[in-house]
This record gives sequence, structure tokens and C-alpha cells, in this order.
Amino acid sequence: MNYTKLFSQTAVSIKASAIRELLKVTARPDIISFAGGLPDPQLFPVKEVAQCMSDVLANSPREALQYGTTEGQKCLKGELIRLLKETEDLDVKEEELLVVSASQQALDMVSRVFLNRGDAIITASPTYLGALQAFAASGADVYGADSDEYGVTVQGIEKRLKELQTAGRLCKFIYLVPDFINPTGATIPHARRKEILQLAEKYDTLIVEDSPYRQVRFEGEHQPTFYKLDQGRGRVLTMFTFSKVFVPGFRLGYITAPKEVIQKFVVLKQAMDLCTSPILQLAAAAYLKGGHLMRHVREVVEIYHKKRDWMLEMLAKYMPEGVKWTRPEGGLFLWVTMPGQIDASAMLQKAVEEQHVAYVAGVDFYPPRDARRNDMRLNFSFSTFEQIEEGVKRLAATIKQSL
Amino acid sequence: MNYTKLFSQTAVSIKASAIRELLKVTARPDIISFAGGLPDPQLFPVKEVAQCMSDVLANSPREALQYGTTEGQKCLKGELIRLLKETEDLDVKEEELLVVSASQQALDMVSRVFLNRGDAIITASPTYLGALQAFAASGADVYGADSDEYGVTVQGIEKRLKELQTAGRLCKFIYLVPDFINPTGATIPHARRKEILQLAEKYDTLIVEDSPYRQVRFEGEHQPTFYKLDQGRGRVLTMFTFSKVFVPGFRLGYITAPKEVIQKFVVLKQAMDLCTSPILQLAAAAYLKGGHLMRHVREVVEIYHKKRDWMLEMLAKYMPEGVKWTRPEGGLFLWVTMPGQIDASAMLQKAVEEQHVAYVAGVDFYPPRDARRNDMRLNFSFSTFEQIEEGVKRLAATIKQSL
Repeated sequence: MNYTKLFSQTAVSIKASAIRELLKVTARPDIISFAGGLPDPQLFPVKEVAQCMSDVLANSPREALQYGTTEGQKCLKGELIRLLKETEDLDVKEEELLVVSASQQALDMVSRVFLNRGDAIITASPTYLGALQAFAASGADVYGADSDEYGVTVQGIEKRLKELQTAGRLCKFIYLVPDFINPTGATIPHARRKEILQLAEKYDTLIVEDSPYRQVRFEGEHQPTFYKLDQGRGRVLTMFTFSKVFVPGFRLGYITAPKEVIQKFVVLKQAMDLCTSPILQLAAAAYLKGGHLMRHVREVVEIYHKKRDWMLEMLAKYMPEGVKWTRPEGGLFLWVTMPGQIDASAMLQKAVEEQHVAYVAGVDFYPPRDARRNDMRLNFSFSTFEQIEEGVKRLAATIKQSL
Repeated sequence: MNYTKLFSQTAVSIKASAIRELLKVTARPDIISFAGGLPDPQLFPVKEVAQCMSDVLANSPREALQYGTTEGQKCLKGELIRLLKETEDLDVKEEELLVVSASQQALDMVSRVFLNRGDAIITASPTYLGALQAFAASGADVYGADSDEYGVTVQGIEKRLKELQTAGRLCKFIYLVPDFINPTGATIPHARRKEILQLAEKYDTLIVEDSPYRQVRFEGEHQPTFYKLDQGRGRVLTMFTFSKVFVPGFRLGYITAPKEVIQKFVVLKQAMDLCTSPILQLAAAAYLKGGHLMRHVREVVEIYHKKRDWMLEMLAKYMPEGVKWTRPEGGLFLWVTMPGQIDASAMLQKAVEEQHVAYVAGVDFYPPRDARRNDMRLNFSFSTFEQIEEGVKRLAATIKQSL
């Protein structure tokens, strides 16, 4: 039977994520993959997770296995409020916090609560491709703002805001990953954050702040969140996740936002999935309560720092002239720019099939208007040190062949 | 700040679920609640869940805690394919099966993959309110089809299909809960299923079959699924969940559908939440592999059967004349119809505040065009036998006051 006439605009327009499709190929053991955004599974706190799980099932099995409230389990929300106070100096109230099934769900919720098909938003260019996917599913018209080595520029954002204003169009929100942005690793400095927030005020729009990597800082100074800088004026929503600093397999994240916005999210989440798994929420709460998280974060930061250093060293050692890369102060990724004639997407098949090394082509991280084709994103958290050396060597060989 | 101009049509039009809001009130220990759709937590297989969890974390911690594939973990899909063969005589291929974060997510995905704002669909009237919520979030125009004691009628559906055809409108799908429908408990007989399927063929539309209660049958004969009757012609999608026969807290469900449709779901799910929690999928797979599920289902069926009988007996004993109720062959709910002058919504506040008993007013289960106000849904799975007697007594007193 022919489904075409039955499919929605969303179904027709959404495209498979290049990364998720690629992950299937790169699961082959002979391939060294810098493609995914996977944490190092050797670092997973397996023993503590097992202990928390077993405690939860011993102490509150019926809460853990029953339906939960859409807002999130009270005990986890309490722990998160404490964590945000301790680590970010934020005073978040219970009704300003929502537990979600990881950041991707938060992105989807933001899209659906704010965007009608054709609505305009602004993102950094390049930016996280999973966000672009979620925005595309709602039919967003995405305007990319230029970036430099410190992330998106104030001028880049203002240019887009002015353009939209001139066209009589509303910018529904500005989406930013201020710390160690996926894909380039750039971090927006304090002063620039303040200026961007002023722009949001001037043009009366929201800032959607996505902070999955924030705790993974190797060096340099912690910059305040947009949420903190906003001082409760309600112009910022911030999304956090446990996927990068605890375990992705729990699919847990949380959003802080003004109460009116959280209320909309809650009602939508009732239609989306009723609630996030209570057993996982209780286990995460036990993990936080046990004081394990920040200890684990320190361990993760130490190892990823070494892996970043090692990848930088290998890039310097093996890459041919004309290839450039970023030096992120944290996170899981760096960004490689090749001479302009090389198309990273076209080169990928050769890299995988001939050299058995994988990456994500940069083009997937650009909003449609801005696509550039000679960048690639490399992940340094997942591979071992040996794989990083061997993988960079193979990648360098592939690039040399393409020059 | 004023968010109104920034919110989407979805955000403006979605409404909080009456049930979810009510659950907050009914959490008070002095209230006997027939309102939720909660399984009896005393029946949760806590010991087996703890064992499966601990096995998974001992044997495959890194798969359990890492990101998973969007399609679902291979081992769980294998177990589900076996289960569907054994219990439903279905031959489902791996690419025709998708693991989801429980049925509500499946409903949301179906809405988004098939519906543009304003698109027409047909449902039974009354029908599951969570489905109505998910469809409303996509801006669906829902046409209710009349029901009798055996659920939705063939004539009711054909009337709507003709109406839409005459208006030159496409019916994107017919949504049905064929077994023990939430809210009335009615089950569509075999012959009627065949006729409805023929209608779907004649008018070239899909059937979305929602089967959360199917395994909870107390008496009478198992009717074949629409999926089975379709014999692989691709006109039926069927969604199942673990929430009613295992535990809701795992938030796990699965959809069987034609490959082309599953592919659309997968791409959308990438944007929605990347993947469903691998640790919960692996634990559920271990539970199925251990042969626990069908044993547990038998236990659940035995207890819920007794609870249904007890509630029927108490209704007969306490309800005033003029009140009618259904006698479902399975599931978790029955449906009470009061004399026409009583508005169940208006009566609810009195029931909760004065008599400390709760239910869901029937009006929430009707598509907007068909609302009737003198029904209520009662859940019999959650309360104890003592609570069922006392609660029905209180409810009868409330009704008598309203007569």
C-alpha cells in the first residue's frame, strides 16, 4: 500500500541523522570511530549504579515501578535544585524545573511549545545537529549566526535579528550551546554572553541555553550560565543532561525555565510520554544524594583532558599542512577544517571503506542557508589513546590522498 | 515577560489532562481513587525486576549504560518477536518492530508522522483520552464514531468515512482500542473487526490499533488482532505496552507496523529522544527471557478478575436505580452511566471533597463533537477490595444526593 498521501509534512521533511545512520557502520570493530558523541564506557560508574538500583528496589519499589508524575519525582527534583545551587549558584524553584527523558526530548519540547511551521529562530552556525533535527521536525526556519573561535558572535546574532525585524518576522528564540559547543568546542566568554542577553532583551526574544558539556571543563575559567546572568527575568530556558557526566543509558535530563513555560512543557509531556521513568529518576536521585556525581565528573574531566591533549598532539604530528583544528577548553569534540577544495562528506566513504576511520562531516551541523563542506567533527572521549593515534594517522592519510 | 506571542499553536491549544491533574488530589490518603489507570502496585514483580537489573549490570553494563540504537536493543526486539509469535501468532520482522518509551510515545509518534494541523481522523466515541491529547497536540480534527456494548460500530465508522469523503477530506487513520477499551471496557468481536478492516480498505485508510490491555482477559474468547487479520497487507499499525502487564515505571512499549512506516518513526524518534533507555530494555529482555511475563500476567488476570467481580457486586448492591454500568471481559476499567440530568464533571468536586472518592468524568473521553456528560470511568485494578466496597458506597451516596 502507498503511504505517501497519508504522511504528514513532518514525516516528509524529516531526514535521518547522518550520525545515527553512521553509528551502525562504525559499530564494526575494525573501524576507529571519531563519529559518535559517546562517553567512554570504561568510565561508567557501574558499581555505584548497581548499588543505587538495588537500594531503590529495596526501599521504594512501588514508587519506582509505578507511573510517576509528569513533572518528575520529587526526590530527584530536590537533588537537582541542590546541585544547581552548589555548582551554578542558581536559585531554582520546584515549579521552574522539569525532569525530561534527556536533552533531546527537551529540544523537541522547546520546538513544539514555541514553533509553528515556518517560524524563524536563530542558532550558531555551526551548531548541534540533533537540535537542528528537532527544530526541523517542527518546520522551523533556521537562521545561522556567524561564529569565531569564541563561538557565535554578537554581530552575527544582531545581523540576523535585524534581518528578521526588517522582514516583519518574529525570532521565536536564539538557541545556543554556550560551553564547548558541539561541534567546534568553542565557549562563549562572559562579556559576550551579557551582550547577547541584551540583544535578546532589545529584540524581545528568548534564549534557549543547551548545556550538556558544561561540567566537562579541562582548563580556563567557568563562565556564568545565561540563566544566571538573566537573574530571574524569565528570558532564558536552560537544559541540562546526565548523558555526558553520568550515563547516557538513563536518558535523563532537566530543564529550568520560567514557571509559565514549564507548565506548557508539562502539558505537552503528558501527550508525549506521560512521565520519565521513575525507577531511573529514583536511582539518579540516590546517586546524587550519595555524593557520587561530582567525584565522577572529576574523573571524567581528568581522562577526557588527557584524551584531548593526545588528540591535539596527534593532529599536530600527522596532519598535512593547510589543515586546521580547534583547541576546546572542555567537552567531547574538536573541529577540523581542511583546505577548501576537500568535501568532508564525499571523503567520508573513502575514510570508512579504505582507511577504516570515521568522523561526522561538518555540513550536517550547518543551518541550511550556511552549509560549508570542508569541516569535520572529531570526538575524543570514546576512543582509547591507541585508537586516537591510529585513527588520526588514518585520517591524515585520507586527507593527503584528497589534497 | 509575556510569552503569549512566542508560544506555538500547539502550546496554546493543548490542555492539561483531567486525569493527570486529578491524580495530584487523589494522592491524598483519605481519598479512595477510581480515577487513575494504575496497576495494583502490590502485584509488581519486584524480586524478578531486581534480579534482572542486577544481572544486566553484571553482564552487560556498558551496553546498558551507553546510548542505544533508535530502533531498540536487539535482544529485546528478539524477545518481543518471539512473544508476538507465541501469544498472537504474528510473524513480525525486525524492521517491522520499534521499541518506544511506552504507548503514549507511540501515540505521539503516530500523530506526528501522519497528521498535519486540521487533518481528519476517526476514533471510537468515547475513547482513550491520552490518545485524544496526543492527537490534539498535532491539531487533529477528530471524528467520533458511535459505540454500542461491543465497542465502536461498523455503521458508526462508515457514516464518518462517508461524511469525510463527501467533504473531499482524507481520513488519515482510524484509531481503535479493540480489546477492553479505555474507558468502557468493550471489546470488538471478530466479525466486526473484519468488517472494519474492509472499510479501511474500501476508503483506503489505516487502522491504528492500540492494545495495552489485551493480555488482561478474564473470560470470553481471545479475538484476533487487526494486525493478524490484515495478513501483512500493511493497513494496520499496532501498539503494545508493558505498562499494564509488567510495570509502568519502565516506560516501555513497542509498535509493529509496515517497514516504511517504522522507518519514519525511527527518524522522528531520533529528533524526539534519540533512543529508549537501554538499561530498561535489557532488563525487560532478561525478564522475558526468564519466562516471567506470562506467569505474571496470569497472576494479574486472576486478581483483576476478582476485583472486577467485586466492583460489579458492589455496584449492584449500592447504586440507586437508573444507574447503569458495563461488564468488561478484561482490562482495568468499567463505565458507569447515570441518569441524563447528572453531570459527572460537576459532581466530581462534591465526590472528592464531601465523600472522598474520585473517578474520571466521561466527558474527557469524547471527541469534541460528541461530548456526553453523564458517564464516569471507574478503575478497579488499583484499589483494594475494602476500598472498592467503601468507594462504591461513597459514590452511590454522591449520586443519590444528585438525583
